[in-house]
Amino acid sequence: MRATRFFISTLKEAPADAEIISHKLMMRAGMIKRLGSGIYNYMPMGLRIIRKVENIIREEMNRAGAIEMLMPVVQPAELWQETGRWDKMGPELMRVKDRHGRDFIIQPTSEEAITDVVRSEIRSYRQLPVNFYHIQTKFRDERRPRFGLMRGREFTMKDAYSFDRDTDGLKKSYQIMYDAYTSIFQRFGLQFRAVAADNGAIGGSGSHEFHVIAETGEDALVYCPTSDYAANMEAAEALALSDSRAAASAAMTKTATPGKEKCEDVAALLNLPLTATVKSIVLAVDADEGKEKQIWLLLLRGDHELNEVKVSKVAGLANFRFASESEIVEYFGCKPGYLGPVGTVKPVNLVADRTVANMADFVCGANEEGYHLTGVNWGRDLPEPVVADLRNVVAGDPSPDGKGVLAIQRGIEVGHVFQLGTRYSEDMKATFLDENGKPQLLQMGCYGIGVTRILGAAIEQNYDDKGIIWPTAIAPFEVVICPMGMDRSEAVRTETENLYQALLAAGVDVILDDRGERPGAMFADWELIGVPHRVVVGDRGLKEGKLEYVARRGGEAVHVPVAEMAAFIQARLAE
Amino acid sequence: MRATRFFISTLKEAPADAEIISHKLMMRAGMIKRLGSGIYNYMPMGLRIIRKVENIIREEMNRAGAIEMLMPVVQPAELWQETGRWDKMGPELMRVKDRHGRDFIIQPTSEEAITDVVRSEIRSYRQLPVNFYHIQTKFRDERRPRFGLMRGREFTMKDAYSFDRDTDGLKKSYQIMYDAYTSIFQRFGLQFRAVAADNGAIGGSGSHEFHVIAETGEDALVYCPTSDYAANMEAAEALALSDSRAAASAAMTKTATPGKEKCEDVAALLNLPLTATVKSIVLAVDADEGKEKQIWLLLLRGDHELNEVKVSKVAGLANFRFASESEIVEYFGCKPGYLGPVGTVKPVNLVADRTVANMADFVCGANEEGYHLTGVNWGRDLPEPVVADLRNVVAGDPSPDGKGVLAIQRGIEVGHVFQLGTRYSEDMKATFLDENGKPQLLQMGCYGIGVTRILGAAIEQNYDDKGIIWPTAIAPFEVVICPMGMDRSEAVRTETENLYQALLAAGVDVILDDRGERPGAMFADWELIGVPHRVVVGDRGLKEGKLEYVARRGGEAVHVPVAEMAAFIQARLAE
Repeated sequence: MRATRFFISTLKEAPADAEIISHKLMMRAGMIKRLGSGIYNYMPMGLRIIRKVENIIREEMNRAGAIEMLMPVVQPAELWQETGRWDKMGPELMRVKDRHGRDFIIQPTSEEAITDVVRSEIRSYRQLPVNFYHIQTKFRDERRPRFGLMRGREFTMKDAYSFDRDTDGLKKSYQIMYDAYTSIFQRFGLQFRAVAADNGAIGGSGSHEFHVIAETGEDALVYCPTSDYAANMEAAEALALSDSRAAASAAMTKTATPGKEKCEDVAALLNLPLTATVKSIVLAVDADEGKEKQIWLLLLRGDHELNEVKVSKVAGLANFRFASESEIVEYFGCKPGYLGPVGTVKPVNLVADRTVANMADFVCGANEEGYHLTGVNWGRDLPEPVVADLRNVVAGDPSPDGKGVLAIQRGIEVGHVFQLGTRYSEDMKATFLDENGKPQLLQMGCYGIGVTRILGAAIEQNYDDKGIIWPTAIAPFEVVICPMGMDRSEAVRTETENLYQALLAAGVDVILDDRGERPGAMFADWELIGVPHRVVVGDRGLKEGKLEYVARRGGEAVHVPVAEMAAFIQARLAE
Repeated sequence: MRATRFFISTLKEAPADAEIISHKLMMRAGMIKRLGSGIYNYMPMGLRIIRKVENIIREEMNRAGAIEMLMPVVQPAELWQETGRWDKMGPELMRVKDRHGRDFIIQPTSEEAITDVVRSEIRSYRQLPVNFYHIQTKFRDERRPRFGLMRGREFTMKDAYSFDRDTDGLKKSYQIMYDAYTSIFQRFGLQFRAVAADNGAIGGSGSHEFHVIAETGEDALVYCPTSDYAANMEAAEALALSDSRAAASAAMTKTATPGKEKCEDVAALLNLPLTATVKSIVLAVDADEGKEKQIWLLLLRGDHELNEVKVSKVAGLANFRFASESEIVEYFGCKPGYLGPVGTVKPVNLVADRTVANMADFVCGANEEGYHLTGVNWGRDLPEPVVADLRNVVAGDPSPDGKGVLAIQRGIEVGHVFQLGTRYSEDMKATFLDENGKPQLLQMGCYGIGVTRILGAAIEQNYDDKGIIWPTAIAPFEVVICPMGMDRSEAVRTETENLYQALLAAGVDVILDDRGERPGAMFADWELIGVPHRVVVGDRGLKEGKLEYVARRGGEAVHVPVAEMAAFIQARLAE
């Protein structure tokens, strides 16, 4: 590509609404352009990257035996009514009426559409397993679109859907997709991590998220550096921090702690470690089907944080909410800050985190304003508690697989694989006939990659103060040739053209910057855009028969004989 | 591709709602599957064709210097309000509100979006000309979606938009696109014709339609076989059928024609040729801005048809409608069937078609029920008329370029190139600075190809009683290998695999039918799907060292030595 036949548009400053680095750099590099809130034009420079991402995904999906098709953007509401999602999904589902007043949605995902296809196309077990995918425009009406392509409203996803005859088949199809995703992210050239994810109502271990590692990531990824264990924060299991409980050694004593409502303050006042304190969290479950309202008290060690997903899995807490201050006063006879499990006014359901259950001589609120209890012990001052994993893990916690301690890093979710089971096939009556001619529900898996989100995530991982540093596989161009003084020097023109043609002939994705910009502006543009390999053709170098090569990532200039540069570049690209 | 790794789903019968052959065959061949009214899943077999069409378009657009980008599907209403199309467009424009109640549209076309991009990106004449295109999903809420991909609601189009500094530049950009379209349709391997189209309010000669020739086409294409002249019916100029008017030779006479309301019946009754009769068409233009309502009488020769687009270009008739029967009675004192220009009750504006203006001694209604006038002559019985081209041409009419006579064929519109001028840049204030630093309006052109419509049109042109006959360039596969008794014969398996690998290595897009179907079912499937080249591998042929080749289009079986088949196929593909 010659730059004068392409469209390059860079900005010195990012627009004010760009808050994060990837959004700023994509705007400055002319890769996207805002059309409306959360809706972007993909400019020529950005579209090239999207196409490279799509092609890698497509090649690996095809290799894994998935079959590409294309489902519509606008889909009839009836299908979404069959699965109940028409009612369950909130305003993020973009709804539209046609001229006859019939309801449609602009698809945010296509489980319903593919299940509609499959329920009429798949008749026999002989047609299974099968996996269909498409790469399509999606829309999610975010309340507050922001961060450019990271949380836009219109975006592109690859979504795949596998169908199997049984759960063993589903697990195989799932593993094939897990492996394909691993290949895809490896080919992108991004640092990534697959983590076990919470499976929601489905249960089982059938869900993983793929994250691009980035300090700016929204998600905390938990992993064990000395084993394969990895999970997202919601799903990472927290073990008890001691194996057994010490014997009680102190009497339970009411202690004045005026104005000390936080564990940190109480510990400081009492000159105790924070790990000797227990915090109380009060939840409510509203009355439902004859059951009265229940108030629950959850206990965590003072330095730990509640994990709401884990809480929702405790029997009876699926529909919990945080209790109101008036409910707390009604049940505990005390305002928040001094709550504890000993001597509540009305009975509450008590659940202790695993670590709390093994504590002795601990400190908690006294259910009286301005007072805490010290020397509290299970079995003596309190009955033995119901125990559950209620907390977020922290770095240094033991790994659930017993093979080391946990570490935490930040990530950006860009892929998700999920064993859906019969969630959709049941509602939509998607069955096949087994060997005995009996109809059976299809076992379904779904597998998504946020195509446009990959761009944002890749930049969050790979940038410096000059701009973006693309991995070669998804760079808008692999190589840029920057001629110096092309208008003045016949030699520069000749060697530039020779190298350009040699690289084109070798199948290299090269752009020749023939715009006639000054060297400073030209280099700044390509460093901002992030093309990973640059060759400078100038008279000074040519006098010594050499061209200059610089890698975008921390590269020193390398001077390479003119005749060897094409081979040199190809060798770098093959690395 | 091996068939067992792909998804093939054929039907013996088309669904009842498929009315036309392309819709029937695409459904039967498993290329599309209905999700909702006018909304289709593109199944794997169909998507392959779409991708081939897109790639040919993309290559030729890039070669022509156009730059690919991607504009959003969902676009803010504000842009469409700027150009007035938010109000002007009817219910075919799909409108949607987001969660905040803001208005958006699902794009049917992107003039507004690209002009919004360009008005901020293009600052100087140095950046011109520029041409952006995208290949994107569109939506048009057709009142009555039908004919499969021919008149669907969701569809894919390539649309390109050129921007120039002046009309000379626009004409050059337009010609480049015209030439690119010619290359594209040639590469598709379809018979097509580019015809001049009516330019609407813009005027000038700056619009052409590209049609795929098909007897089932909705549009009549006018062309001169002995010259380059070609236009659609709306735009084709009708010359007068005689150069001059004969002298009057008969007296004007009122003749009883009871019950004869049509020219055909009057001519038969009077034993005159239909070409001696004149028909009267009454139009009304409603009162507007101080002008009173006007009634117009248009005269056509009895065998000719009115061309409403031409009528709308007659001065004063831009907003015409057909007159009501009560208006006709009010102005002519007579009901329709016996109307004419002589002796109306109230004054009407009279326009004669060019051919009528040169008639003498003609027959027309007498403005009295049951009577016509014969021997009517201009200048004697009537004042000289206003003359205009009001009619559709018919086959055999003289070509407007004077180089022969016109012929008519049917076509399906699949492309349109259009000189828009400043229609959008004016409303949206899209300017650039010229050499003198003065802002000037951008001159714009737009260029569309209906990607998914191409599939329907190609089939309407290329099918037989067995199914579709794809041109090789856009066939889902170029070649199919059909092994006979693969399960029984080691030799068949070996030679099938050898040929498959040889063709793959040569870059041939080949599918190996390894499903194990019976020969009859296998051949029927591939004839229905329309793969242009078929090789059969069977024991009978192998005994003589030969494989059988059959071309989908009218081919006799050719027996080719095993070792030569790969080269034979490549030679056929290169034809």
